[in-house]
Amino acid sequence: MSLLVIGSLALDTIETPHGKREYTLGGSATFISVSASYFTKDIRLVGVVGYDFPQSEIEFFNSRNIDTSGLEILKDKKTFHWHGVYHKDMNTRDSITTELNAFETFNPEITDKFRSSDYVCLGNVDPIIQKRVIKQLKNPELVMIDTMNFWIEGKPAEVKETLSLVDVIMINDSEARLISGEYNLIYSAKKIMELGPKILIIKKGEHGALLFTENTTFTVPAYPLEKVYDPTGAGDSFAGGFMGWIDKTKDISDSNLKTAMVYGSVMASLAVQEFSLEGIKNLENTTIKKRFEDFRYLTNF
Amino acid sequence: MSLLVIGSLALDTIETPHGKREYTLGGSATFISVSASYFTKDIRLVGVVGYDFPQSEIEFFNSRNIDTSGLEILKDKKTFHWHGVYHKDMNTRDSITTELNAFETFNPEITDKFRSSDYVCLGNVDPIIQKRVIKQLKNPELVMIDTMNFWIEGKPAEVKETLSLVDVIMINDSEARLISGEYNLIYSAKKIMELGPKILIIKKGEHGALLFTENTTFTVPAYPLEKVYDPTGAGDSFAGGFMGWIDKTKDISDSNLKTAMVYGSVMASLAVQEFSLEGIKNLENTTIKKRFEDFRYLTNF
Repeated sequence: MSLLVIGSLALDTIETPHGKREYTLGGSATFISVSASYFTKDIRLVGVVGYDFPQSEIEFFNSRNIDTSGLEILKDKKTFHWHGVYHKDMNTRDSITTELNAFETFNPEITDKFRSSDYVCLGNVDPIIQKRVIKQLKNPELVMIDTMNFWIEGKPAEVKETLSLVDVIMINDSEARLISGEYNLIYSAKKIMELGPKILIIKKGEHGALLFTENTTFTVPAYPLEKVYDPTGAGDSFAGGFMGWIDKTKDISDSNLKTAMVYGSVMASLAVQEFSLEGIKNLENTTIKKRFEDFRYLTNF
Repeated sequence: MSLLVIGSLALDTIETPHGKREYTLGGSATFISVSASYFTKDIRLVGVVGYDFPQSEIEFFNSRNIDTSGLEILKDKKTFHWHGVYHKDMNTRDSITTELNAFETFNPEITDKFRSSDYVCLGNVDPIIQKRVIKQLKNPELVMIDTMNFWIEGKPAEVKETLSLVDVIMINDSEARLISGEYNLIYSAKKIMELGPKILIIKKGEHGALLFTENTTFTVPAYPLEKVYDPTGAGDSFAGGFMGWIDKTKDISDSNLKTAMVYGSVMASLAVQEFSLEGIKNLENTTIKKRFEDFRYLTNF
């Protein structure tokens, strides 16, 4: 059981109709690894930060059994900083500032130990870097990537090449339409899976998520919440719950992938209930179990 | 077991990216009653048509055990005619023609036999007429209404008064937001149920539907279809499946309401697979059973 997580670490400033946080811990690798840490123990983090990254956050990762030996600290740069403002509907946002800083030249060399990880979760970065990371891996059981419209539009050939190398791709509905050139999501899914991935997860925000495998289509709703405090990190929390469960169970049967989808949704729903990472920073296992059972009541008949 | 269905009957001209049908049987009461006819036997139809309404369609209703004695035929008017053109995404459409004709003065007098129906499904008509119909009923077990933004914006006080008289309201997400003045659907649901209905169904089109009761929230996805031929009548087919199942089982426990939601979704999914009423005009019970089990595989974990 080992899960390698590669992606961004950031200090975010986030404003939503419900409040504001400044320079708070964020980034895809942060949400993925912390979310996964509730399911599995041997999590390896690969990322880069600057001189301003608080030592207390590194200690926090370690307290959650996240190995930070792959975390590079650049002495002459600041940490990736994003400042976002969410609109009233919480589905749209403006990016006020995106300072890549230390993350600008991110192109990690994976250590020997980490190259032999069983499961790998590659956050949304340049598809060329994703490919370079994948080439360094030694027979992983399953590799999942995330990507975004910025890369799909800017480097379509590279995205497709990376897709041919991975087992799972997780994207949102508009990204699925962009990759496939099809409006209908079911038809989109078929076309995307022809590019390589045998497992496709389409996130639909407040409308939940879809799982596609060769023989299965599965839907899971977003948990109905009266108040969403901050959607930041929802998708990455989903990815962490999903891959954490898979690493724990070592089972990629369709039936267990369904369960992983629900744990992903559980973690996303807990994340958006609070600001930034606060919703999943210090969870009791009973809270996760309870939310999982709530999902069963919400969907099963 | 008896289900009273009140609403529009129309001859529709429908264009979608997949084809066209001219002057084909449509209207809310049509879809509701035909959909319900796969679940229960004693269905009573109340509506109005013009001199051009084909006798063969009346015979079709009767062949499905739908009592058409409450169908008024106006000798000097044509039948309600709607001509709609769906856009490529199938979620938006333009109304080319809306000729109310016979339906313009619809204000039905319910016969004594029909007033004692057990279950009542009132399609989307003027809330004043809905109220007048409800006042004629004799102790129904459950009354469901549909409404739309046209009435919510045009006659808000009348819609609210009608809401205070019914058990179930079925609306779409934008209508729920309009009635409640709230963006968040969970909070919207709470506010709408404070107006009277103890059961609320929110339809979300391709994203499925939500059920709210005092103690239960339940979600059902739309069935993932590679091709949607014609969304016309999806919501009414849903209502027919839902109320047909309730009339058959006489059980409004939360658990059975969930099952009714799934049968509603089954009928909606079968309806949109073909043009206008064609998808549910001549179904085998095994097709419905099979789709119901497909929903279980799609959602249960």
